[in-house]
Amino acid sequence: MSMKENAHQMKIDSPALAATSVEQRNRALELIAQALEANAEVIFAANAQDMDAAAAMGVTPQVLKRLKFNDAKLRDVIDGIHQLIGLPDPLGKITLARELDEGLVLRRVSCPIGVIGVIFEARPDALVQISTLCLKSGNCAILKGGKETAHTNRALFDIIKENAVAAGLPESCLLQAESHDEIGELLACDHDVDLLIPRGSNDFVRYIMDNTKIPVLGHADGICHIYVDAKADQDMALPLIIDAKTQYAAACNAVETILVNRTIASEFLPKLAQACADAGVKVRGTQEVAGIIACETMGEDEFATEYLDLILSVKLVEDVEEAIDHINRFGSHHTDCILTSDDAVSERFMQMVDSAGVYRNASTRFADGFRYGFGAEVGISTSKIHARGPVGLEGLVTYKYRLTGEGHIVGDYASGVRAFSHKDIEL
Amino acid sequence: MSMKENAHQMKIDSPALAATSVEQRNRALELIAQALEANAEVIFAANAQDMDAAAAMGVTPQVLKRLKFNDAKLRDVIDGIHQLIGLPDPLGKITLARELDEGLVLRRVSCPIGVIGVIFEARPDALVQISTLCLKSGNCAILKGGKETAHTNRALFDIIKENAVAAGLPESCLLQAESHDEIGELLACDHDVDLLIPRGSNDFVRYIMDNTKIPVLGHADGICHIYVDAKADQDMALPLIIDAKTQYAAACNAVETILVNRTIASEFLPKLAQACADAGVKVRGTQEVAGIIACETMGEDEFATEYLDLILSVKLVEDVEEAIDHINRFGSHHTDCILTSDDAVSERFMQMVDSAGVYRNASTRFADGFRYGFGAEVGISTSKIHARGPVGLEGLVTYKYRLTGEGHIVGDYASGVRAFSHKDIEL
Repeated sequence: MSMKENAHQMKIDSPALAATSVEQRNRALELIAQALEANAEVIFAANAQDMDAAAAMGVTPQVLKRLKFNDAKLRDVIDGIHQLIGLPDPLGKITLARELDEGLVLRRVSCPIGVIGVIFEARPDALVQISTLCLKSGNCAILKGGKETAHTNRALFDIIKENAVAAGLPESCLLQAESHDEIGELLACDHDVDLLIPRGSNDFVRYIMDNTKIPVLGHADGICHIYVDAKADQDMALPLIIDAKTQYAAACNAVETILVNRTIASEFLPKLAQACADAGVKVRGTQEVAGIIACETMGEDEFATEYLDLILSVKLVEDVEEAIDHINRFGSHHTDCILTSDDAVSERFMQMVDSAGVYRNASTRFADGFRYGFGAEVGISTSKIHARGPVGLEGLVTYKYRLTGEGHIVGDYASGVRAFSHKDIEL
Repeated sequence: MSMKENAHQMKIDSPALAATSVEQRNRALELIAQALEANAEVIFAANAQDMDAAAAMGVTPQVLKRLKFNDAKLRDVIDGIHQLIGLPDPLGKITLARELDEGLVLRRVSCPIGVIGVIFEARPDALVQISTLCLKSGNCAILKGGKETAHTNRALFDIIKENAVAAGLPESCLLQAESHDEIGELLACDHDVDLLIPRGSNDFVRYIMDNTKIPVLGHADGICHIYVDAKADQDMALPLIIDAKTQYAAACNAVETILVNRTIASEFLPKLAQACADAGVKVRGTQEVAGIIACETMGEDEFATEYLDLILSVKLVEDVEEAIDHINRFGSHHTDCILTSDDAVSERFMQMVDSAGVYRNASTRFADGFRYGFGAEVGISTSKIHARGPVGLEGLVTYKYRLTGEGHIVGDYASGVRAFSHKDIEL
């Protein structure tokens, strides 16, 4: 079947997955965890093929590390599945109950989104996390993983699908897309796919966003800032900035720009320059910064650059207001932090900065579903519509309004024969 | 200034509106309500100009009624504003609070979406409802109303804007677009406008959805169904169907198709035909239906038609499963109803039908923000992403994650020096 036909069948079958009990869905996750363990050697053998091919292509050690699926990573994904089983059912939650009139009761109840397409980078553990998050939340999923781990993906997918179906979930609950051409076909399935979650390079995510009518959840850029306020604890600031830049420089939540309050610049910048030098971080700064410490100078328009590397942009600002303006203008609405001991200034920053994560005295690298305690994440959203920030189970559900009456008609309310009571019912 | 420049300035100023207190926003609504009352004659005079022009153009009495802004409608919108003032603040609500580790606390807090563009039909009361909903929820709004009420719109907008600013809300909180060309300019403002809410004809909404990168909330079609189950109370069914079809036939939540369980067809269809004849509703049916009652016959592919008129499509189905399949295939995911006394069948229907509203024994016409007790609505969404069904204050907010630490860095958790506690804090 073509992608279009497959997606259409999945859409037709998706209510059947929505109607499964949490016991059934957890049972599927249980079987999947057991089967992954039992088939470890098959998975590792498939991964060895991918690793050999990647090594032959001269892939960097950094990337090889991401492609690798070893015992430690298997352990992690199995732990993740057990965490997911332990989380409460995201479906059937009543978030509003209201008596509109005698015998006429409105309830807002959570339900799956339906059919979700996820396109993700070559990371085998991501395939397991994404597919199990979708199953737990009752969503059918079309998965397209990076081609560099094609053998590992196939081995993992087959185990997951087989055991989901063995647990009684519908046959078309999961589908794997393996060829690159299928991405284009998937983007055209706007009648059957409810949501797309692309992960990967900025250019790739932007391409997806520009080439489909399906709603897209995710983020292209991750331009995160740290503003060092006049009342920042400078001893706290240095290791925190270094962590935010270097703990994983290629991550979307790594910091790119440090904004420093002008009143502390002459004291703080030399310490920052030293800490950066020690950590192998190159500093780029405005003319004003370059007048205080030795650094490469940069222009104003370069502050929209995501380095994904051990490089920091530095700029001086007058006050928290200028920091806020800079972040809202140059940032990507991902995660931004203020370092200060001043409650009022911090509150102003957290209220006015228009980002999914607004932090005080904590590294931007905390922006992550696992660290937030969501079990796992399908991605991080910088969209303001639907889900924002790390997207776990709650971001994978929507709701429907259920209204039950006893033959109630609107004409009676229009004519004044009856009136609405609008009494909320305790949840 | 051009629309682009205006929208850009609005975006820059939007955090200032987000930071206002609910007292300030309610104070603005209070001033607006008073000023609308005090300026009634000015508004009515402006409306008289619109009515004269419309009458000269030969507009139908039905449409004229919608354009009219009289004392009763003024009363309604002022009542609506007072209701809105009485609703709790949708901003600053904490929906998750979790200690990630000692001194590291995560909170998910509701906040405005930012800049919302609303394009709506020529109905002056809609302008008041939409602008006040946006102000209460802290959103800047660009409003483009139907040109047939241009004078009334201008009078209302000027009063609303002037009093919002007088109450201390930012100067650029509201903007009115008056020329049709500005719609195209608005659609191109994807960097500054966070959400578009188009209302009006199906073709118009579809045009908007197809011609912008801005997320769109709303609905094009409203193809609603009522399924009359074998265990339906037939005496209840007839007035309910007539209400759902005739109470306001041009509304999106009016019913278009009646699905009847085959086992009761010979008994129920003649009664339905009589009720329709009495109410002036024309019946169209499949060949099978036409074999039982006199009606125009129709093909399967015509079930995707929204009549917006006193016409009903009728079809027989084997059981609730066939009804569900038909609705998910031909419906527009707006509002669909089952008439039955069977709890299990009803539950199956409500779980499997993939619509914003799933009803039991109640008219589809109840799908409305006012009737749901939301105060008012900016529109009804058939999207599954973000807000679904009637969209009131809650659909106009998003959230941000606030994280406060004491210098916490991710490196300590990666190295095992510290571990996450993930303890939820009572809300």
